[in-house]
Amino acid sequence: MTDATRSSFTALSEQECRDLLGTTTVGRVAFVNDEGQQLLPVNFAVRGHDIYFRTTADSVLAELGEGHDDVAFGADFHDDTYQRGWNVTVVGSSDRVDDPALISELLATARPRPWAPGERDVIIVIHERRIGGRRVRQH
Amino acid sequence: MTDATRSSFTALSEQECRDLLGTTTVGRVAFVNDEGQQLLPVNFAVRGHDIYFRTTADSVLAELGEGHDDVAFGADFHDDTYQRGWNVTVVGSSDRVDDPALISELLATARPRPWAPGERDVIIVIHERRIGGRRVRQH
Repeated sequence: MTDATRSSFTALSEQECRDLLGTTTVGRVAFVNDEGQQLLPVNFAVRGHDIYFRTTADSVLAELGEGHDDVAFGADFHDDTYQRGWNVTVVGSSDRVDDPALISELLATARPRPWAPGERDVIIVIHERRIGGRRVRQH
Repeated sequence: MTDATRSSFTALSEQECRDLLGTTTVGRVAFVNDEGQQLLPVNFAVRGHDIYFRTTADSVLAELGEGHDDVAFGADFHDDTYQRGWNVTVVGSSDRVDDPALISELLATARPRPWAPGERDVIIVIHERRIGGRRVRQH
């Protein structure tokens, strides 16, 4: 499929989306709270159908640890000359991670460098309810 | 300011934020509609305190042309080795662009290549109400 900007878009399968998420570590989290629409950058890790990120206990993102049922997460890639790229969006519900084994694993293996533990840090999970994405090529 | 991941964050001034937005063309738009939280990638242009993007008349983004008072827009940069980057977030209200001169200017000059006009296309503006951002350096 092409559009008037002479780009072609290819829909990605759900698994292709999850695989692409594994190739990057920066994304955006979108949700509405009492202050309104939030859109915050995060360093994230993907494990199966879940997105994980670490935040400080006093940040806006920490509220997601109390459980939010409509959170969107997006990650994108585009190369320097914008000739190609992809974007993936996940929508789901958030929660706080309390499992010590999972926390240890994430802290030890998250890229680009291990997440150093902070005493007041909270790890948030977004459980995937929907995932989709596209590859983009400019012509 | 550094955090436990050994990154340093520098807050950007509003004008630094707008200047950085001018160096990239891909961002994400977040808003809530009747279906829930939306988070969509766009090719955008910045002019002064406004963000512009083009969308097809039947897309979810076209609803923003009817006026939405709580829309967030985010753009990020991070280099291949994640040693440095920046992120900028704008929050504001959206509207449809009907000014023919402005439409012509955007279609002719938007990067990375001119937005070819499509008959059913709508150009949306986000009027900035708040803008903020940070530079990030990993150590």
